[in-house]
Amino acid sequence: MDALLKEIARIVGPAQVLRGEDVTARRVDWISGAPCRAGAIVRPADTAELADVMALCHAAQQPVVTHGGLTGLVHGAEADADELVVSLERMTAIEALDEIGGTLTVQAGVPLQAVQEAAEAAGMQFPLDLGARGSSTIGGNIATNAGGVRVIRYGMMRQQVLGLEAVLADGRVVSSMNTMLKNNAGYDVKQLFIGSEGTLGIVTRAVLRLQPLPPVAHTALVACPDFAALTGLLQQLRRTLGDGLGAFEVMWQSHYALLTAESGRHAPPLDPGFPYYALIESLGDDTDAEPRRFTAAIEAAFEAGRVSDAVLAQSEQQRDRLWAIREDIEGLLAHVDPRFTFDISLPIADMEGYVQTLEQAVHARWPAGRVLVFGHLGDGNLHVTVGTARDDAETRRAVEALVYEPLAALGGSVSAEHGIGLEKRDYLHLSRTSEEIALMRTLKQALDPHALLNRHKVLPDIAE
Amino acid sequence: MDALLKEIARIVGPAQVLRGEDVTARRVDWISGAPCRAGAIVRPADTAELADVMALCHAAQQPVVTHGGLTGLVHGAEADADELVVSLERMTAIEALDEIGGTLTVQAGVPLQAVQEAAEAAGMQFPLDLGARGSSTIGGNIATNAGGVRVIRYGMMRQQVLGLEAVLADGRVVSSMNTMLKNNAGYDVKQLFIGSEGTLGIVTRAVLRLQPLPPVAHTALVACPDFAALTGLLQQLRRTLGDGLGAFEVMWQSHYALLTAESGRHAPPLDPGFPYYALIESLGDDTDAEPRRFTAAIEAAFEAGRVSDAVLAQSEQQRDRLWAIREDIEGLLAHVDPRFTFDISLPIADMEGYVQTLEQAVHARWPAGRVLVFGHLGDGNLHVTVGTARDDAETRRAVEALVYEPLAALGGSVSAEHGIGLEKRDYLHLSRTSEEIALMRTLKQALDPHALLNRHKVLPDIAE
Repeated sequence: MDALLKEIARIVGPAQVLRGEDVTARRVDWISGAPCRAGAIVRPADTAELADVMALCHAAQQPVVTHGGLTGLVHGAEADADELVVSLERMTAIEALDEIGGTLTVQAGVPLQAVQEAAEAAGMQFPLDLGARGSSTIGGNIATNAGGVRVIRYGMMRQQVLGLEAVLADGRVVSSMNTMLKNNAGYDVKQLFIGSEGTLGIVTRAVLRLQPLPPVAHTALVACPDFAALTGLLQQLRRTLGDGLGAFEVMWQSHYALLTAESGRHAPPLDPGFPYYALIESLGDDTDAEPRRFTAAIEAAFEAGRVSDAVLAQSEQQRDRLWAIREDIEGLLAHVDPRFTFDISLPIADMEGYVQTLEQAVHARWPAGRVLVFGHLGDGNLHVTVGTARDDAETRRAVEALVYEPLAALGGSVSAEHGIGLEKRDYLHLSRTSEEIALMRTLKQALDPHALLNRHKVLPDIAE
Repeated sequence: MDALLKEIARIVGPAQVLRGEDVTARRVDWISGAPCRAGAIVRPADTAELADVMALCHAAQQPVVTHGGLTGLVHGAEADADELVVSLERMTAIEALDEIGGTLTVQAGVPLQAVQEAAEAAGMQFPLDLGARGSSTIGGNIATNAGGVRVIRYGMMRQQVLGLEAVLADGRVVSSMNTMLKNNAGYDVKQLFIGSEGTLGIVTRAVLRLQPLPPVAHTALVACPDFAALTGLLQQLRRTLGDGLGAFEVMWQSHYALLTAESGRHAPPLDPGFPYYALIESLGDDTDAEPRRFTAAIEAAFEAGRVSDAVLAQSEQQRDRLWAIREDIEGLLAHVDPRFTFDISLPIADMEGYVQTLEQAVHARWPAGRVLVFGHLGDGNLHVTVGTARDDAETRRAVEALVYEPLAALGGSVSAEHGIGLEKRDYLHLSRTSEEIALMRTLKQALDPHALLNRHKVLPDIAE
């Protein structure tokens, strides 16, 4: 690798090739804190430098791992000693704002939050939002097709991207920097790079679609007596709030109780004894009518027996307190340790039975085991935490089997929003048909025939 | 072809293989009325039959053209005598409705309007909408990534598709029938088949996302004094109506005047002497507040000098009359005959200059020539009609050059929503970089190495 790094240093400058402790001092996984084991970290300044670096790597058959904000959850940033890390941390320019077209053009290393702030400064919003907004980068959001708490209203990252530029494994630059909402001139090749976790190319720039700023958000936490009431509430709100339904986040009782009464981390706004809690938000446009409409919708649900108790946020502070319960991942991790966490999706109608079956199976095997569930119910997405007081590899496999295997029959997914990375590739076949996986391999072979980009990730290795 | 058709008849039944006059009696182009020239038309009943047919075609290296509703505008349905047409006209089942998940599962041959009606019967909406709704099929809408009049609010067809199933050129069935809003398990292979105009596979089934029904639509036609006022109005409405802005359709003066005063087809709701007209619609959720909010927005635009005159629809009938002007394609075609029509997109900020330059160039060459422009301005999409009193091939090439060539420097597209087909493939390079086109060829080669599917379409033939 030394000879190659010397050539690379001529492109990016010697200060932008990190080795030794400059590499191992970095963490590739924010939960485990595992150090970076890569042979070196290269920090190009722009697309042209990265293209030249990749051309050299291609000629030398050097495997490469791309680093963004390192907030991924499926070990997608791990690198072995024979791998080179390309970090986009210097590519943080916000290049252009088109206020008439409603677009923002950025380099891939810009943090999500910086994009949100740039949009707001122009009187618009960039609607993708997730807990890691301060660290996660736009390039990483694109590569993983990030989700978050606004998907029910605005869609995932894929829907926010109008154009992008990517460097292929051989150093060719594919510039597909479309700025328009509509462009049907040939295949939409940018889709290849969205959600393929850096295995088909390295995203270097993007044109993002901005949205109007919704001036009013109204928030309520409600308790539901059973699952049918919960789904009935979702359908009712879709009908009455329509497009205004901006969040429908659900906590199963065990999850809500842990983060409020049991741990004492949050004063419970509602009694912790109800089976389900939903954090509901309406994104309205009319300061006068919106609170009335929202309150009326909650009252109607109460009268229909779909809601047992409710609290409406009366201030920004109260709103933050309600969201703080839902977003307290730290509290969850601290109080269920060790634990295995999962990010799955399945048809909403199947969720009640799925969780019950999982709870029974966990308790049958680990009588003191715990299953905690919350999720973006409106998107079909559940985040499941399983604690068994053990975290060895065998227990992990056993828990993974209980969580993932029932999804196959339900048409569910082993990854709703986190991606596959290294962590889930052995379970990909549960969510995708063999023909889909064969087609993924066809694409990988066509775009990265030497498998240089994010080696071993997403697709299971083929036995030699 | 005869031996192959005998084998195919064994799969689909002899009555489902049309030949001779049953083929030539069909029109492949609703504007020119050109007859179908294919060797035969095969009508499979379902995916399994189509897969078997394609396996036979693959073995025989038989080229195939797929037919949906035949409402395309870029000659994508044309077939030569040595080609076989596969028509999905018998695959019209609406298979499943999930009211909780808000999804509809259909076969690809279902007409768009039938899907809209099925959604409405369930108290929801399928928001894709376009003039050809009665004939165009869901499979065709997917294959061409159809647009229409609701893109500004709901996106194009790509955003309405949660899952799909496709038959590849060799007869393999790729079933990617995801039903969830979120599924990041590996590459999203369904994207390959959306907007690739049947050249990578034949879409056979789909899972569609339904949306809440917006209970109130308010409509106004306004006249603007200049282009800056028009874009200022768009920005203002984005701010004040936010997500509620459901349509922003613009007619240049020449277009509006032709369809009202000049042709006498429609009584002009506003004087036909203003430079620009915008048909604006708000999709609201609140019967009380919506009319006030909409009226206030129009009044504010009037006071700011962005609107010179306006008419608000006071009834469904008035609303229909306003839309009738905008949607009167028949009137346009009847009064500018012969004519060349175009579907382009470009940054909104560049539209005024683009149209002026085009008008000057047309008038310089054809003093009696006409340029008529309307479009989905909020999407960056213009429909341009050019009349020169001639329709020979040389004139067509000359007009195409005037319309398409300036788009390259503006980052515009030679096809906003109609696709490329045969008509625009020689201009693809104006809207896509050579690296993008090379990547499209890589995909075509990987998925359809013998180029059996919709031969010669989308990608220019490589000189042999």
